[in-house]
Amino acid sequence: MPTYADIISIGDELLYGQTLDTNAHWISGRMDEIGIKVKRRITVADDESEILKAFQESEDRSDIVLITGGLGPTKDDLTKPLLARYFNVSCILNESALADVTEFFKKAGRELTEANRQQAELPANCTKITNRMGTAPGMWFDERNTIFVSMPGVPYEMKTMMDEIILPRLKQKFVGGVIHHRIIKTIGIAESTLADKIADWEAALPPHMKLAYLPSPGQVKLRITTMGNDKDSLRAETNQQVERVLPLIEQYVYGYDNDEIESVIGQKLIQNEKTLAIAESCTGGYLSHMVTSIPGSSAYFKGSLVSYANEIKEGMLGVDSQTLEQHGAVSEEVVLQMAKNIRAQFNTEVGLAISGIAGPDGGTEEKPVGTVWIAYSDSQKTTAKKFNFSKSRVLNIKLSALSALNMFRIHFFSN
Amino acid sequence: MPTYADIISIGDELLYGQTLDTNAHWISGRMDEIGIKVKRRITVADDESEILKAFQESEDRSDIVLITGGLGPTKDDLTKPLLARYFNVSCILNESALADVTEFFKKAGRELTEANRQQAELPANCTKITNRMGTAPGMWFDERNTIFVSMPGVPYEMKTMMDEIILPRLKQKFVGGVIHHRIIKTIGIAESTLADKIADWEAALPPHMKLAYLPSPGQVKLRITTMGNDKDSLRAETNQQVERVLPLIEQYVYGYDNDEIESVIGQKLIQNEKTLAIAESCTGGYLSHMVTSIPGSSAYFKGSLVSYANEIKEGMLGVDSQTLEQHGAVSEEVVLQMAKNIRAQFNTEVGLAISGIAGPDGGTEEKPVGTVWIAYSDSQKTTAKKFNFSKSRVLNIKLSALSALNMFRIHFFSN
Repeated sequence: MPTYADIISIGDELLYGQTLDTNAHWISGRMDEIGIKVKRRITVADDESEILKAFQESEDRSDIVLITGGLGPTKDDLTKPLLARYFNVSCILNESALADVTEFFKKAGRELTEANRQQAELPANCTKITNRMGTAPGMWFDERNTIFVSMPGVPYEMKTMMDEIILPRLKQKFVGGVIHHRIIKTIGIAESTLADKIADWEAALPPHMKLAYLPSPGQVKLRITTMGNDKDSLRAETNQQVERVLPLIEQYVYGYDNDEIESVIGQKLIQNEKTLAIAESCTGGYLSHMVTSIPGSSAYFKGSLVSYANEIKEGMLGVDSQTLEQHGAVSEEVVLQMAKNIRAQFNTEVGLAISGIAGPDGGTEEKPVGTVWIAYSDSQKTTAKKFNFSKSRVLNIKLSALSALNMFRIHFFSN
Repeated sequence: MPTYADIISIGDELLYGQTLDTNAHWISGRMDEIGIKVKRRITVADDESEILKAFQESEDRSDIVLITGGLGPTKDDLTKPLLARYFNVSCILNESALADVTEFFKKAGRELTEANRQQAELPANCTKITNRMGTAPGMWFDERNTIFVSMPGVPYEMKTMMDEIILPRLKQKFVGGVIHHRIIKTIGIAESTLADKIADWEAALPPHMKLAYLPSPGQVKLRITTMGNDKDSLRAETNQQVERVLPLIEQYVYGYDNDEIESVIGQKLIQNEKTLAIAESCTGGYLSHMVTSIPGSSAYFKGSLVSYANEIKEGMLGVDSQTLEQHGAVSEEVVLQMAKNIRAQFNTEVGLAISGIAGPDGGTEEKPVGTVWIAYSDSQKTTAKKFNFSKSRVLNIKLSALSALNMFRIHFFSN
């Protein structure tokens, strides 16, 4: 029987869509790491009746109730008085909390206000949790076989409290079994095609192993989750299954777990001591942005030319004007020259090039919006491929850049 | 009595903390815009009993239940069969949905699989919502005085469906009076400074007018919302207030409503028949990507050089090697040359250049991570400014690109 947790996020600003709730997401990840299952996440307004209902429902559902928000010194902060009411106790001055908040203000060189003093009054049945990063103390309740934890909504205050105090306590109290995850990352194959290819393998998975498909444009992640008692045996069991499924989909797999296609490529370039340059047209800099989003990419990426206008393709990149005129900028001939020339001009071992029609305008019957040519070039080969993506400009830009990285993976890795 | 909505996000990957739920946040914002109050947001696992319970609870609580996720063609996607079970109907082939998905695959030049065909089978009591961006149709249920809407979890599929079909329908059905929004967009001023500047104006707003601060890195949007019965009088009243506040903040305002800084700049370039080229270093293509994310940007953007390595700054961009050696790549002298030279080499009227230290490595005591030089150059002036951003690579890249666009706005617009 796993341990269950509910996460309650409190705040009007969340339900108005003004503040993105990254707290619940972050806490979910931490719970997963220590094998506690988040059963439900709830977001409620700064509203007495809604908050009290949420407390009751979560107590009925889970062993642990983790609450963020509503702890500030202003009137719309209701969490503390409502927890007192929920447990039918009063708020009394907590000397240790007062010492914390006095110390905090002393360090910040600020005066303690009456509002801050009141923050040290806590429900009589709770244990204070020190807030090293702010003024509102956290609270820990152990009542009727349920743990309630109340934390501030300010992310760095909550995270510090969680990592330093709450997680170690929860781990000690609840963690029996373990959860193991393994993520296989694929590119260049549709979710449904992938599902068809591995259907037999999936059907034969043991019942305590769960498979999830996590799709995003151009990519599908396969997550295998196993629960049990021994981390090592779960890992071994999972690896066996990975070895079984890999031959079915190997050509689409670029990495595992936290790997990203742009970092995998970077590692390969570093290992092989090679450098990369890019000539991009319809992607307008997005491919270069992906490559340079990786810290340390300056070790293998020399730069790129965004040749948006044809005169730049000719003048700066040396694409032959006759070829441009005869075949058009979006053509195999032009993209091959772009990849070859950028490699020569930037003096790199590898060149990538993209030329296409991102849309919404510029399409023709022969070359509709979404037509994109991508080329790869190194000292041994120069090759191009045509893609037909979508009608969406944003999507065409993303899929073109991803496909260029995938072409790199396919051709560079096979050398 | 306001109209209430619940938002249910379905997916193990959310509760494991692997995928950040931006859908519920985005939908919350859209609901707020049309005056529908989000009562609660719930996140549940890919688990039959949890999903069914969430359906029932949300039906009891709200007038509208908006559901995202769990619509893929694979086994862990439960939303569709559970909606059928919840309403006690069976899934039958929806001819119109089949036509949609067939068309989708035809355009993509791919084969329709059996799994995709099954996606066109929908609960008998629903109305299909066309998914222009993907294969899983949305579903609209109108039962027992509650609207249930099921949408895919892929953000761009959900958003397109929402904006094109669902929001207009909800507006027609639930929104009695009219709501008028006006958004003032500012750049280069902190939220608290902005709030101080307009405090008196804000305090004097009439009670039926609501002001919201919507901050994002480098920008703050001010949204004025008015509710009433007559669109024209709401608009007139709002415009009066805008005219009153504008003198206090005019130098930071770059646009209104759907304007983006990159599109505002594009319009100005078109109006003045001028062209732009960019030389960027630490932003690695992100500034060019921002500029080219605007449809039609090829009319004024000729291209850019991403000069990541110093040899590219010298060889391709013609930055003086002595200047590079003496002052370093991240310096006023170098960024001024970059802006001037890119303009000359690409034969454009305006040049923008960025050179900085994005991090996490590469910082020194004198030039810590986050130090960025940005330059603007046209025929009348060439000028540079130094910024000190953050320790975060991602944030430094975004803030640098935004600040470059803001420098363009300030200098080009004043000509």
